[in-house]
Amino acid sequence: MQRYFLATPITATVGQTFTVAGATVKHWIKVMRAQPGDLAEFVTQTQQVVVAELVNSDGQTATATITAVTAPKVELPLPVIIACGLSKGDKPEQIVQRGTELGASAFVFFDSQWTVAKWAANKRERKLDRLAKIAQGAAEQSHRTMIPSVTYEADLTHVLVNTTYDTGVVAWEESAKQGESSQLVQTLKTMTSPQRLLAIFGPEGGLAPQEVNTLQTAGITAVGLGPRIMRAETAPLYLLSSVSFWCELV
Amino acid sequence: MQRYFLATPITATVGQTFTVAGATVKHWIKVMRAQPGDLAEFVTQTQQVVVAELVNSDGQTATATITAVTAPKVELPLPVIIACGLSKGDKPEQIVQRGTELGASAFVFFDSQWTVAKWAANKRERKLDRLAKIAQGAAEQSHRTMIPSVTYEADLTHVLVNTTYDTGVVAWEESAKQGESSQLVQTLKTMTSPQRLLAIFGPEGGLAPQEVNTLQTAGITAVGLGPRIMRAETAPLYLLSSVSFWCELV
Repeated sequence: MQRYFLATPITATVGQTFTVAGATVKHWIKVMRAQPGDLAEFVTQTQQVVVAELVNSDGQTATATITAVTAPKVELPLPVIIACGLSKGDKPEQIVQRGTELGASAFVFFDSQWTVAKWAANKRERKLDRLAKIAQGAAEQSHRTMIPSVTYEADLTHVLVNTTYDTGVVAWEESAKQGESSQLVQTLKTMTSPQRLLAIFGPEGGLAPQEVNTLQTAGITAVGLGPRIMRAETAPLYLLSSVSFWCELV
Repeated sequence: MQRYFLATPITATVGQTFTVAGATVKHWIKVMRAQPGDLAEFVTQTQQVVVAELVNSDGQTATATITAVTAPKVELPLPVIIACGLSKGDKPEQIVQRGTELGASAFVFFDSQWTVAKWAANKRERKLDRLAKIAQGAAEQSHRTMIPSVTYEADLTHVLVNTTYDTGVVAWEESAKQGESSQLVQTLKTMTSPQRLLAIFGPEGGLAPQEVNTLQTAGITAVGLGPRIMRAETAPLYLLSSVSFWCELV
C-alpha cells in the first residue's frame, strides 16, 4: 500500500476524517489515480500509521476516513545521526537514500578541511531541499515512521556543538581488535535505548590532524569498521547495518 | 600505494624479480607514470601482498623487484556468496561494487520468475565482463586479497546446484524475532570459518511462490534483516555488513 507522511497533526482514531493537500494529493490522486474507497497509509506526526479510505478529492485537497490505526516499531532503538564530510558527485544523495532505508535518524553534511567538494553558499539551500526530498521518498518506500532530517554545518566543531547526542564515534582504520571485541561493539554495549549515537565520517581524503584533535578533545571514540577499506559513501551503510544487527537481531 | 592483482603465479620472496603485462602495465606505467624505483603493491594468486619496485618497462611489460611480503587478513572468515535475482538499471553494478568493498567472495545473478529485467543471451557475456571489471577495481581499491567472481545462472535451481556452500539463507520479511535472537544470528552462530554462506535475494518484485518452495526443499533458511523494507540492492549490503560485524568485530 502507498504510504505518505502527514504534514499536519491529526486525531488518529478509526472513523475520524482528515484532509491532505500539496504533494500528497498530487501523488495519490493524480499519479496513483486513487478513487473514492481506495486505501493508503499515512504516518502521523507522532509516528503512528493510519490506513485511510479516500472519501473525495477536488484535485487540490483530498478527504479520507481512518479505517485502522497501528504503531509499528520500525525505528532503530538507538537513533543514529550520520555526519559526513562533503563528498563529490552524487555521494551525498546515495548516503541519504540508502542511509534512510537503513534507519538513520538524521544526516549532517559538513565542510571538512580536506574536502574536495564544496557547496557554494547560494546553492546550499537547494541541495538541502533536494536531499530532504530524497530522505522523504526513501522513508516512505522503506516504511519508516519518521523522515530523517538533513542539515549542513560549516565545520566539524559546529557539528559537535549543534548536534544532540549521547555517544559519539568516528570511523577510523583500526589495526586490530582491542582486547575481546572491537571499539564499535564496546561502544554499543554501553548504550541503552533511546540514547543517540553520533557517527562521524571523513570525506574521500579523510580528516585532517586538527579535526582528529577536535574529536579527541570532545571525547569521540575512534572505531574500526572491519579490515577492508571502504569508500566514503559505503562506511555509513556498514555502521547503520551493524547498529541494526546489534540492536534488532542479536 | 596503488594495488594490482597478478594474473600469473610468482615466487613471493624479497629480492625476487617478476614481470607484469596487460592492463596492469597500462595503468601503472601509462596512467600513474611510474618511474624506476617507484613502489606498488601486488596481490599474488595465493593471497599474499608483495611490495615491489619498478626496475624498467618498455610500455608493454614491466619488471619489478619484491621489497616486502605480507599476508594480511582482510577476507571475511565466513566467505559469503551473494545470489541476486536480476534487477533493473545499474543495480547489479552497485551490488558488485559495494558488495566487493564489504567483502563478498562471489556474486551470482539469476533469472527469477518475477524479474522485470532480462539479460539478452547475446549481451550476457559483455555484462559479466563489465561486472568482473567492477569487482576487480573495487577489490583493488578496498585492499582485498581476492577478486570476487561474477557469474550468471538461468534460474534459482541452477544457483543451488552450481554453487558450493555449507549454509544457505534467503532474505525475507520476518515479522518478529524467533525467541532470543533472529534467524540470521542463529544461523551465523552455527557456522565456523571457513564455511561458506550462500545468501539469496529476490529481485525488486520478490520471489515467486514456486521459488520459495524450491528454497524450502533445499533447506535454505528464511532470515529477516530488520524491520525496515530495503530495496533489492541495499539488502545484500546489510547482510555483508552484519556478517563482518559478527565475525570481525563482536
